[in-house]
Amino acid sequence: MAETLIKVDLNQSAYENENIHNRWHPDIPMACWVNPGDDFILETYDWTGGFIKNNDSADDVRDIDLSIVHFLSGPVGVKGAEPGDLLVVDLLDIGAKQESQWGFNGFFSKKNGGGFLTDHFPLAQKSIWDFHGLYTSSRHIPGVNFAGLIHPGLIGCLPDPAMLATWNEREAALIATDPQRVPGLANPPFASTAHMGRLSGDAHARAAAEGARTVPPREHGGNCDIKDLSRGSKVYFPVYVDGAGLSVGDLHFSQGDGEITFCGAIEMAGWVHMKVELIKGGMAKYGIRNPIFKPSPITPNYNDYLIFEGISVDEQGKQHYLDVHIAYRQACLNAIEYLTKFGYSRAQAYSILGTAPVQGHISGVVDVPNACATLWLPTQIFDFDIRPTAAGPVRHIAAGGVDLPLSPDRV
Amino acid sequence: MAETLIKVDLNQSAYENENIHNRWHPDIPMACWVNPGDDFILETYDWTGGFIKNNDSADDVRDIDLSIVHFLSGPVGVKGAEPGDLLVVDLLDIGAKQESQWGFNGFFSKKNGGGFLTDHFPLAQKSIWDFHGLYTSSRHIPGVNFAGLIHPGLIGCLPDPAMLATWNEREAALIATDPQRVPGLANPPFASTAHMGRLSGDAHARAAAEGARTVPPREHGGNCDIKDLSRGSKVYFPVYVDGAGLSVGDLHFSQGDGEITFCGAIEMAGWVHMKVELIKGGMAKYGIRNPIFKPSPITPNYNDYLIFEGISVDEQGKQHYLDVHIAYRQACLNAIEYLTKFGYSRAQAYSILGTAPVQGHISGVVDVPNACATLWLPTQIFDFDIRPTAAGPVRHIAAGGVDLPLSPDRV
Amino acid sequence: MAETLIKVDLNQSAYENENIHNRWHPDIPMACWVNPGDDFILETYDWTGGFIKNNDSADDVRDIDLSIVHFLSGPVGVKGAEPGDLLVVDLLDIGAKQESQWGFNGFFSKKNGGGFLTDHFPLAQKSIWDFHGLYTSSRHIPGVNFAGLIHPGLIGCLPDPAMLATWNEREAALIATDPQRVPGLANPPFASTAHMGRLSGDAHARAAAEGARTVPPREHGGNCDIKDLSRGSKVYFPVYVDGAGLSVGDLHFSQGDGEITFCGAIEMAGWVHMKVELIKGGMAKYGIRNPIFKPSPITPNYNDYLIFEGISVDEQGKQHYLDVHIAYRQACLNAIEYLTKFGYSRAQAYSILGTAPVQGHISGVVDVPNACATLWLPTQIFDFDIRPTAAGPVRHIAAGGVDLPLSPDRV
Amino acid sequence: MAETLIKVDLNQSAYENENIHNRWHPDIPMACWVNPGDDFILETYDWTGGFIKNNDSADDVRDIDLSIVHFLSGPVGVKGAEPGDLLVVDLLDIGAKQESQWGFNGFFSKKNGGGFLTDHFPLAQKSIWDFHGLYTSSRHIPGVNFAGLIHPGLIGCLPDPAMLATWNEREAALIATDPQRVPGLANPPFASTAHMGRLSGDAHARAAAEGARTVPPREHGGNCDIKDLSRGSKVYFPVYVDGAGLSVGDLHFSQGDGEITFCGAIEMAGWVHMKVELIKGGMAKYGIRNPIFKPSPITPNYNDYLIFEGISVDEQGKQHYLDVHIAYRQACLNAIEYLTKFGYSRAQAYSILGTAPVQGHISGVVDVPNACATLWLPTQIFDFDIRPTAAGPVRHIAAGGVDLPLSPDRV
Repeated sequence: MAETLIKVDLNQSAYENENIHNRWHPDIPMACWVNPGDDFILETYDWTGGFIKNNDSADDVRDIDLSIVHFLSGPVGVKGAEPGDLLVVDLLDIGAKQESQWGFNGFFSKKNGGGFLTDHFPLAQKSIWDFHGLYTSSRHIPGVNFAGLIHPGLIGCLPDPAMLATWNEREAALIATDPQRVPGLANPPFASTAHMGRLSGDAHARAAAEGARTVPPREHGGNCDIKDLSRGSKVYFPVYVDGAGLSVGDLHFSQGDGEITFCGAIEMAGWVHMKVELIKGGMAKYGIRNPIFKPSPITPNYNDYLIFEGISVDEQGKQHYLDVHIAYRQACLNAIEYLTKFGYSRAQAYSILGTAPVQGHISGVVDVPNACATLWLPTQIFDFDIRPTAAGPVRHIAAGGVDLPLSPDRV
Repeated sequence: MAETLIKVDLNQSAYENENIHNRWHPDIPMACWVNPGDDFILETYDWTGGFIKNNDSADDVRDIDLSIVHFLSGPVGVKGAEPGDLLVVDLLDIGAKQESQWGFNGFFSKKNGGGFLTDHFPLAQKSIWDFHGLYTSSRHIPGVNFAGLIHPGLIGCLPDPAMLATWNEREAALIATDPQRVPGLANPPFASTAHMGRLSGDAHARAAAEGARTVPPREHGGNCDIKDLSRGSKVYFPVYVDGAGLSVGDLHFSQGDGEITFCGAIEMAGWVHMKVELIKGGMAKYGIRNPIFKPSPITPNYNDYLIFEGISVDEQGKQHYLDVHIAYRQACLNAIEYLTKFGYSRAQAYSILGTAPVQGHISGVVDVPNACATLWLPTQIFDFDIRPTAAGPVRHIAAGGVDLPLSPDRV
Repeated sequence: MAETLIKVDLNQSAYENENIHNRWHPDIPMACWVNPGDDFILETYDWTGGFIKNNDSADDVRDIDLSIVHFLSGPVGVKGAEPGDLLVVDLLDIGAKQESQWGFNGFFSKKNGGGFLTDHFPLAQKSIWDFHGLYTSSRHIPGVNFAGLIHPGLIGCLPDPAMLATWNEREAALIATDPQRVPGLANPPFASTAHMGRLSGDAHARAAAEGARTVPPREHGGNCDIKDLSRGSKVYFPVYVDGAGLSVGDLHFSQGDGEITFCGAIEMAGWVHMKVELIKGGMAKYGIRNPIFKPSPITPNYNDYLIFEGISVDEQGKQHYLDVHIAYRQACLNAIEYLTKFGYSRAQAYSILGTAPVQGHISGVVDVPNACATLWLPTQIFDFDIRPTAAGPVRHIAAGGVDLPLSPDRV
Repeated sequence: MAETLIKVDLNQSAYENENIHNRWHPDIPMACWVNPGDDFILETYDWTGGFIKNNDSADDVRDIDLSIVHFLSGPVGVKGAEPGDLLVVDLLDIGAKQESQWGFNGFFSKKNGGGFLTDHFPLAQKSIWDFHGLYTSSRHIPGVNFAGLIHPGLIGCLPDPAMLATWNEREAALIATDPQRVPGLANPPFASTAHMGRLSGDAHARAAAEGARTVPPREHGGNCDIKDLSRGSKVYFPVYVDGAGLSVGDLHFSQGDGEITFCGAIEMAGWVHMKVELIKGGMAKYGIRNPIFKPSPITPNYNDYLIFEGISVDEQGKQHYLDVHIAYRQACLNAIEYLTKFGYSRAQAYSILGTAPVQGHISGVVDVPNACATLWLPTQIFDFDIRPTAAGPVRHIAAGGVDLPLSPDRV
């Protein structure tokens, strides 16, 4: 078995583990070094560092301080890596920690993070998913069972100072357009909950003050939440600093395109077995600005879908111009409405869209003024037949049965 | 063989064919009637009614009057269909007209329609694609050959008066926010080029004055340009008027997600073999607002992809808030840049993205402030290996070879 | 559209068409010539030349003179082709004749041809399959509908005299081991029903006397009945004579692995659109003895199967040594038994296995003394759920409903 | 994590582990009991109990006493299971033991076991395969790397006395037809190396004397070596004794259809996570004689193949009657010959066919006298392009490089 270079103790605070960090900054010291061609294992916390528990209350989802996320394992230094190279990462395998065969999915309160459908689901809710080998199911959502498309939500290399400055500037400019918005338009650096790996003292203070938050995907990849960047895939990352500085975390047992529930996919603590190699000068050779990747040959092969369309007219009937975001929201709402006809609560349906290997396609973006997006719901994940028939839907999910725990906002 | 209920003569003007229309209006008379359970064939013009020719000049793309599109075959009345029903349409097969085994793809001038990347490709360009049975290739783009994912860009049922009014009102409101914009935010009714099927005289004039343009997808489906709504799929359409009034046109031999080139996919004249059935009261039974569909069991199975990421930071480095449209544009630009390393012109690369069975996924839409979109480029459509290697790219496409014809704007 | 080089009139006897032949012999003159790089269309009779009719009697299946088959279109001469080359054939598309949108499947009487399960189905039976665009269904077998995996059962190049002699010798030697067997072990040359294309007079008589029968697959390919050699595939054929002499026929709308019903797949008259190229000296370069091919990117993607195992112990409980033939027979019998639990007659079940895109795998061939074969039955072709449940099977097919016509042997 | 009910210490002899057995007999006591609905883990030895080592000599393959195989973990008793039930087994996940991330493939000497191509490869050879997460590669076979299709070669329930008697009788009858044959036609009971689990003393002696060898697949499943019975699949096993008595072993990291190399697939020690349920009376309800199964949604999705045909004419040119075994052998030999053109030794090519996810299809079994079999070689497992081109093959594998270790027979 390959060596485990970073270990994680789920009973220990992530802040006490010096091979963990929760901000992006070029000054974060390498946690360890490897050679091109090496394969190795990194263990990871779940993205919240264990804040969300395997229980039947959504209080933790409601109460979490989101400035603490995401707890990443790394950075791993790769000898010989230089700015302008491509770091080739084979995700050889990914799994949940043996002692932690479960994950969570939830909706944040609109007052604390929100989500894609936060106007429809403004309160904290949570579902727990148990892992059964390759499969998962939830005690909060009957009738659904599917194979995991296991992937890291967040992976990428350290930015250099110039790139970090660019990130902070452009995001600050956006925040400045509506600084009081809830949830905020973006998240600025926030020193008091920053975990900068092995940095301490003044160096920690300096870096924490300007370290970029880990929430958005950026040029280096980062929190892309791309479900298909899954175990077995091969990723080509831009390198910005000597040694590359690869970090990873936010593992997902499964996720639908868009990670629409935000909290989030099926979130888990686990491990990543990976191998690294270099393409020297690869960024220029291939004109690379963002990571590119080849998908895995091993993914769930559900191929029978029910596909929902959405257009960029919003819930109030207002016309938007080629807005894929709104179009996809409509497709999601259409799918949720459909699933309620079989007995699911709207929250259960929303959670299915956020966790199952649902596809979200940008179908049409030129037919003014409407964008068209499609949501692909795999039919084979349900215990019953969800296709439309002349007889109409049968309520397979009993009314008055289980639902997602909900925690009202504190007053 | 099933009966051909609507025939099209490519040597005759679409305006002279009374089973064709290019606006949506409930008053357009049914071109023919069928019973639930019937299967039948409708022939169609290409979406421009034959305006674009199989030659090596983009003048026609530059000069087309876009108020004439799309020429649709229908409406077909289905006996017993009533508002609130779902019309189940099996797309049993679709093909090009035997005498017309070719299609076109192009970019409109920014002054006349534009497109997804119109700021990058502001002038009219065109490529011609020849069909070889299941496959297509273009004399303007060497090194690419792929199987067609044949589908109608546009299909749906007639709106009722209330829905038509809704469409016109909300789109007029959008136009009113920037009426002088080029290209326009939306297209209002335009009587002088309206073809209302068999309507004539005052009835024609009244309907033409308020008939909705066919460009955008709307609640009834319409110009969705969904590549996976392909031959072999089964679609469930909302019914708004007695008889349903199903029309179809804008056939595509193939298209990438987004139909980003706008003019458009690989556009062709052809025929659709379809079967219709009804789910009485199906809209309420299943909570249907937009069409839903099941994909075909027969589609090109290219499964090896190179995947490009894009985030919602625009070409000028400006940060946008969860804007999937901009994120997908960046993914497209990244893919275009990559393909130029193998010798393609940027126009050739753009055309490949618009025509090949490229997937566009909404990967992350909650990680503020960046949306993440991915463009999936199938590697098996190329004659050579486009994957990155340590040695760097080989220029398989000779410099100074063929390129897409370009027609500068008239002054 | 590509040129149709060989036309077929279904109202004319195949014997009257000089571009048809039903034996293999190097002296058969080329029906036409093409250049490498050309694409063209050949029309074909069904393999029986129209003997089997679209009706509800199996008399024609019982009474057919099997010495007349298979009626092939060709041979097509390819300029520049020489012995030792590989003829690369792209099967660009294949379809049924427009005026003949149906096919047949049947079981021959054990006294006249037999089949894989002839001891279980010793009498002539027939089912008729109607084509609905990409799909087919049969009025004799309710509850089944699937997309066609359209392919030629028979395609290959002319043998040279030495190869022809080898075929005749080795098959004669086999026949000599049990010359009275019914059905025969093999079929020797038989002049009286031979159709040798344009040959006439003495040349015809000489060639007819030694022309190899078309029934078995041989080194050149020939009657391989490989379902995956389907439209869209690319085949590399050995060339034995100058000009290659490519012939094709026996088109199938669909077939299960093994073509176990012998009469046969879903047999149809149709057309093949193909393109030819040469790899000079390719047989030696690649060590080719039999054709090789690349499958099509467009095939039915049914991916949910119920898989039946069989081992090489026969129906009487006798142990055979690593006999895949017997193992596959047991797997087929197991599947038939299973399907009867849902209401199908055994003949209907047998016909489904012969026509649907069923896979037959050679699973284990070394675990003495039992070979293990598996039959993969796609579940998505059924209107109902055929998977096992704790509740037991539901009879979806009504007892006393339709069944396959049967014609007892004449006495 | 589910409980591990049977543990295996690779440093301990399998004979010392009382939860292991290497014969089939109804008297073998249950190693443990579970309830329907339980999921649990069983660890397993490799099929030889650790005899074959991770080194570069084939001496162990040459010298192994094959009467010791296969070492199985079990039997597991399922409460409430009765003869006539179906035992539903979900293979939730399967993996190699953490401390043993490698497997072996080999050819037995013709004098000691042989194999499918033993006349072509009569001497002992071996290749070692290292596991890298989801992937495997061999230091003895360059240029090949593929994802594992992990499965148990051997799994099934205990026979009852009547079935055991049937097995022994019919196999003895076969052996009696040629008792001196090398390798033998079948393997009779052999007490001296029998491991009967917890049985000891007279009970052991009685059972060992009549315990069926584990080599062949039989009615209960057993050593089916079906590559697609992989992790994630759901299997329905016939039950013959109270408690069912499920045993499993002979884990494979990957295997080609047929397991043609016999020693064997990529053989490994590991663990199986499974869940059991019952369908009471299921054998009669569904007419089940042999196990049936549903394949996994998670398997390597290599979909580009080069397909080789073989017919039932043997290497000496002799004609056989519809013999799929010989046809598949020819297809294998054709593929081996082809691969040598790229630089592989014949032994390397043979090993690839035995280990990679190669498909073997029974293509035609009715076209007298030739059966037609096809071997599907996935092209995406090679580092280089193996498709034929006009330029001819390029030798990617250096001559004089590594090859499989070979151990000549002892004299």
